[in-house]
Amino acid sequence: MRHPNPLLETLLPILPAIASNAERAERERTVPAENIALLKSIGFHRAFQPKPYGGREISLPEFADCVAALAGACASTAWAASLLATHSHQIALFSARLQEEVWGEDRDATASSSIAPLGRAETADGGVLLSGEMGWSSGCDHAEWAILGFRRPGPDGEPQYCFGVVPRADYRIRDDWHAAGMQGSGTKTLLVDKVFVPEHRIEAAKDMMEGRSAGFGLYPDSKIFYAPYRPYFASGFAAISLGVAERMLQVFKERSRNRIRAYTGAQVGAALPAYMRLAESTHQVLAARALLEASWRDHAEHGAAKRYPTAETLAFWRTNQAYAVKMCIQAVDRLFESMGGNCWRLENEAQRLFRDAHMTGAHAYTDYDVCAQILGRSLLGLEPDPSMV
Amino acid sequence: MRHPNPLLETLLPILPAIASNAERAERERTVPAENIALLKSIGFHRAFQPKPYGGREISLPEFADCVAALAGACASTAWAASLLATHSHQIALFSARLQEEVWGEDRDATASSSIAPLGRAETADGGVLLSGEMGWSSGCDHAEWAILGFRRPGPDGEPQYCFGVVPRADYRIRDDWHAAGMQGSGTKTLLVDKVFVPEHRIEAAKDMMEGRSAGFGLYPDSKIFYAPYRPYFASGFAAISLGVAERMLQVFKERSRNRIRAYTGAQVGAALPAYMRLAESTHQVLAARALLEASWRDHAEHGAAKRYPTAETLAFWRTNQAYAVKMCIQAVDRLFESMGGNCWRLENEAQRLFRDAHMTGAHAYTDYDVCAQILGRSLLGLEPDPSMV
Amino acid sequence: MRHPNPLLETLLPILPAIASNAERAERERTVPAENIALLKSIGFHRAFQPKPYGGREISLPEFADCVAALAGACASTAWAASLLATHSHQIALFSARLQEEVWGEDRDATASSSIAPLGRAETADGGVLLSGEMGWSSGCDHAEWAILGFRRPGPDGEPQYCFGVVPRADYRIRDDWHAAGMQGSGTKTLLVDKVFVPEHRIEAAKDMMEGRSAGFGLYPDSKIFYAPYRPYFASGFAAISLGVAERMLQVFKERSRNRIRAYTGAQVGAALPAYMRLAESTHQVLAARALLEASWRDHAEHGAAKRYPTAETLAFWRTNQAYAVKMCIQAVDRLFESMGGNCWRLENEAQRLFRDAHMTGAHAYTDYDVCAQILGRSLLGLEPDPSMV
Amino acid sequence: MRHPNPLLETLLPILPAIASNAERAERERTVPAENIALLKSIGFHRAFQPKPYGGREISLPEFADCVAALAGACASTAWAASLLATHSHQIALFSARLQEEVWGEDRDATASSSIAPLGRAETADGGVLLSGEMGWSSGCDHAEWAILGFRRPGPDGEPQYCFGVVPRADYRIRDDWHAAGMQGSGTKTLLVDKVFVPEHRIEAAKDMMEGRSAGFGLYPDSKIFYAPYRPYFASGFAAISLGVAERMLQVFKERSRNRIRAYTGAQVGAALPAYMRLAESTHQVLAARALLEASWRDHAEHGAAKRYPTAETLAFWRTNQAYAVKMCIQAVDRLFESMGGNCWRLENEAQRLFRDAHMTGAHAYTDYDVCAQILGRSLLGLEPDPSMV
Repeated sequence: MRHPNPLLETLLPILPAIASNAERAERERTVPAENIALLKSIGFHRAFQPKPYGGREISLPEFADCVAALAGACASTAWAASLLATHSHQIALFSARLQEEVWGEDRDATASSSIAPLGRAETADGGVLLSGEMGWSSGCDHAEWAILGFRRPGPDGEPQYCFGVVPRADYRIRDDWHAAGMQGSGTKTLLVDKVFVPEHRIEAAKDMMEGRSAGFGLYPDSKIFYAPYRPYFASGFAAISLGVAERMLQVFKERSRNRIRAYTGAQVGAALPAYMRLAESTHQVLAARALLEASWRDHAEHGAAKRYPTAETLAFWRTNQAYAVKMCIQAVDRLFESMGGNCWRLENEAQRLFRDAHMTGAHAYTDYDVCAQILGRSLLGLEPDPSMV
Repeated sequence: MRHPNPLLETLLPILPAIASNAERAERERTVPAENIALLKSIGFHRAFQPKPYGGREISLPEFADCVAALAGACASTAWAASLLATHSHQIALFSARLQEEVWGEDRDATASSSIAPLGRAETADGGVLLSGEMGWSSGCDHAEWAILGFRRPGPDGEPQYCFGVVPRADYRIRDDWHAAGMQGSGTKTLLVDKVFVPEHRIEAAKDMMEGRSAGFGLYPDSKIFYAPYRPYFASGFAAISLGVAERMLQVFKERSRNRIRAYTGAQVGAALPAYMRLAESTHQVLAARALLEASWRDHAEHGAAKRYPTAETLAFWRTNQAYAVKMCIQAVDRLFESMGGNCWRLENEAQRLFRDAHMTGAHAYTDYDVCAQILGRSLLGLEPDPSMV
Repeated sequence: MRHPNPLLETLLPILPAIASNAERAERERTVPAENIALLKSIGFHRAFQPKPYGGREISLPEFADCVAALAGACASTAWAASLLATHSHQIALFSARLQEEVWGEDRDATASSSIAPLGRAETADGGVLLSGEMGWSSGCDHAEWAILGFRRPGPDGEPQYCFGVVPRADYRIRDDWHAAGMQGSGTKTLLVDKVFVPEHRIEAAKDMMEGRSAGFGLYPDSKIFYAPYRPYFASGFAAISLGVAERMLQVFKERSRNRIRAYTGAQVGAALPAYMRLAESTHQVLAARALLEASWRDHAEHGAAKRYPTAETLAFWRTNQAYAVKMCIQAVDRLFESMGGNCWRLENEAQRLFRDAHMTGAHAYTDYDVCAQILGRSLLGLEPDPSMV
Repeated sequence: MRHPNPLLETLLPILPAIASNAERAERERTVPAENIALLKSIGFHRAFQPKPYGGREISLPEFADCVAALAGACASTAWAASLLATHSHQIALFSARLQEEVWGEDRDATASSSIAPLGRAETADGGVLLSGEMGWSSGCDHAEWAILGFRRPGPDGEPQYCFGVVPRADYRIRDDWHAAGMQGSGTKTLLVDKVFVPEHRIEAAKDMMEGRSAGFGLYPDSKIFYAPYRPYFASGFAAISLGVAERMLQVFKERSRNRIRAYTGAQVGAALPAYMRLAESTHQVLAARALLEASWRDHAEHGAAKRYPTAETLAFWRTNQAYAVKMCIQAVDRLFESMGGNCWRLENEAQRLFRDAHMTGAHAYTDYDVCAQILGRSLLGLEPDPSMV
């Protein structure tokens, strides 16, 4: 019993074009501009933009379903585009003034990010001077702004983890994305050098998690902004993992119908071990989807009811998605490991799915060792370990 | 966002009494009569009985939640009681005359079963003469009727798998349930010797799966009887597995708060490997529950909409539950294997949960090798293998 | 290419008798005296006894092979008998005076143990007064002595982990072994109440690990006593796990030849998923055996060459065995989980093998969470964690 | 207790040079000529060449250890070079005349292969005319000959699987090796077009497995040629898998000493989950090595004793190696999946090890689904399935 999802309905028709660009995305090591244009044409980037700026404010379940579908066509595109879209949710928690700067004139503007607090900030009059080589900014080639992480002394004098929003003119992009997975995501390094970031473009991470940032409450009728930023910000990774795994099920099925073993001419496809693998991976992906959908519904219900998540709820949201990613990767491995050497050729989609699937588990947010500790401590009533966020 | 579940609300208060009987159930190798009385007092046995006979006709999601909760108190009781309850759903697909015999005078009547087609049937005037040592009849000590499997020539002369319903006076019970798991389920052998079973008490298994049995359509307003018998019949196993696993999470948590290692005095409970195990098993059980709930909802929606499941839908229903059982068993193992030798003492609940958990995967219906083949063939569009049901 | 193993050759003929007592051992919750007599008749208990007392001083690889074979007949008997035998290796590291007390008059004497340092020791003139309820003394019904763990102030005033050897007259046995696995091992509690243990019957655990106990060097020609006590002491657990797993392979094979599925009459035995499980478990058990044999050879070579193991070597010996146990349990699970409900009946050997296999992993010495930490720290050059031994 | 291995001793000093070419090998998609020259300088290619031609005829255990060490430096080089070396073992089972052609003038000659029977053979006077696009010829850039698979009518008229040996002048190489793993192995396609292959260059695969090929018995004093060709031919895959896994253990260890988490600054390296992963993978690789070494010793002992392997022994040799590969891949995955996104950058060795490790399991010879069926059938005494070789 699926709920209607208008964005998904407009997305499905453009997926073949995006899929046909997947190899090119890998070759160019960035999302082809054509893909971004297609996604903008259906308003994908407006998913979490506030309605006053033309945004759609769709629910997390709807958005995640779109990301999964997109990832089945091109995971790299989904990776970059979902982050560009979810960053708008975070921007909506900054000051009204910053939002006006971002969207006032260009309602199609988006931001990429480099959120690890690796920037160096010097105190300046009315803000900070920010410098650094800020890595891992997926989709930066297509963004008008960047959200950058740094630390500066907080009210108590202790270093406080903050984000600053910086316009495209203030940073350069180093074309250094050479990776074995998610090759087309254009996850490059942003170079900032003593860029002035005024206070109205700065928020503390903690405030954005606890409903105390400048923009919190600006949109009282919205169903999505009464929420901490991170669950939205990071919602794409698991959806991508799911989409890649669901696509792998299809690829395996199509291939199974006509695979023949080279040495013996035996029909492998209809062979029992092959279809038992398919069944088990199908079940595992179904279970991963069921777990994610339950979590996503829970996010949406909290937002719609203006109920802020408790620490325990946050621990589940934070970690359920990583467990689902783990399941999806296992499901992909179970299939790929039996598909034979031919699937390792670069023209074969399966090898890209295998690499991209594994990379969905390599992000700090989907690191299951971290997540198991976060949830485990929460379940036993231990204090959170501050080294794990 | 839980839906209301009135039966669950009356069940919860009686669970402590049932839990306190768990060791006794194992010792007596049958469900204590007190447990059955408690469950009858809240109408648990009426879950799938037709409303005209006082039944409640609750939805499968509601029922399964009750079974899971009951299994957390005593899995053996849940095993027997859920079968007694689900057999009423099957009885409701037999002829009106048989139903009147069963419930006309005793609205509290229930049936146990021995459904493998191992009975020997001789043709007799207006029915069959049935003989056999019919094993695996869980809860038989507390049932007024038994549903027995046998084969007899069908319309085409080929052996046809059938069920006959037999009153308690027509069979003896052999007290032979000596097993390493689910010890309290009283899963004994029924002895029948040339018992006459008239035609109105007989249905072919195939007809009961395909909406062509005598009782199909008798209750046009019901939301649960427009359905094949087996998904209801067998719904308890996975719910029990889930309930046992959820209970194990609790037991592990309670114990973790004060476990100390004998040799070194080290606090094991709050140890990192212990709580990482707890987190992973918690996630796995959550995912199993999410998968089961999605399936159960699908059952309920089909029944409510009078939509008969397709072969593919049946393949998923048939097999999703077995995959969930597999997940639950893994979750239990991950915890139990780290709990130390002390948990093997018979007074320790954890060892019973471990044994019962594994046994939920030992039923023919939860055999994952069979299920992977059923689903795999369905996914690839192969004909079903008739040796797998 | 097997090396000759004279003890094994005398053991094999008595295994059928021991196997036929396996159910009785479980019922009586102790090793039948007949089994002990059979094992004494071939000198199994003399494996690690010093030659001057009639011992055989066989190599660890030979001994372990015998234990594995014995475990295939009756794991409980192997559990108790291997501990009784390996304790003689430990006794041989105590003072000459204690050894003379133990074996001077009764060359067949053996000791059981309760080694966790849970005894309470009061200082007394020339020794300690020892009290406690000392659990987990496998095979105690058949031993003339007991090795008991306790702590007392060491030379530096800090509590020091020690062992005291106590004659049978000085303690009572509480018949309290009620467990779900290894039921026939008679792992009961020893009750000591202010028993005087003179100094010549006491050694510090650390000294026995580091070649500084009173008896170290007493047998300069021996190939087995130039060694720490623990690797010998604890050598049986993994050998038992291996023997149980190897037996399960046989049981599965025998059963596979004639299993038929109840509902459909399908031949399960020769079914592909069944024999793929058999193959994988066979490989896994082979790999476990190969790993163990390499470790056992390494022990033997160290002893024969009078080379004392380094800390890193000890870390591998300590932990390789636990990893092998983990592999053996997985191999057993893979088979048992597909064997169906019938194998859960108590008369079916498979369920006992399943329970006993899992219990080989429940000992403090085979706890893999502990072992992974011990080896991991060693590999990274971190200091050992004193809470892990 | 390691046995002396002279080839290994000369290999170790050249490994740093080979390791430093690893990225170049991937970029050029073939083994750098410098690597081949280095390996020829120590006589690696002579491992299985008959002594009369200057070969070394070393034992399989010695060779496999060298291959593992080489794979730790560059898996692609090990892949190609081990095949070039083992093909000499196969050549030594062809006619003396063919051997003289291959090695009479050029004692350094080696052969690559394309052994799947995909060539099309037309009968010709005194031989066949062979055509085809013959894929997967690793190391072909550096070989003087090629061994090509095809089918032709056998004595009974049925298609018989054969090999023909063809000189470099008779085929072209298509530069088409674009793959996601083992990128530097130069596994290209050989193009043959109606090439005449005389009978003395042809053998039936079956004869080469059963000691009935033309060259069988030519070297009565050798310890390695009284053997079927395939176990030698295919010995490299598992050794490479092992070598890659052993290298990954090192890489993980080195990295663990100084990894820091970007978001929080936490020391990940010495973190408990990291070193538990390291410990478990270390154990698993040790067990894989122990299993392989036991198999390799068994090969060597059979050859040295002129004992031909039974069908059951062959089933174990055939399949043990694939199980070891499976273990090695799991060990690599366990580490890589926790190493974070940075390890996916192409300059990071870990990502190459991950890709190469997985590819060692993608060869037809290491397909565990096939191997489990082969061994399973053998264990149950079923006839071999002719579609599995």
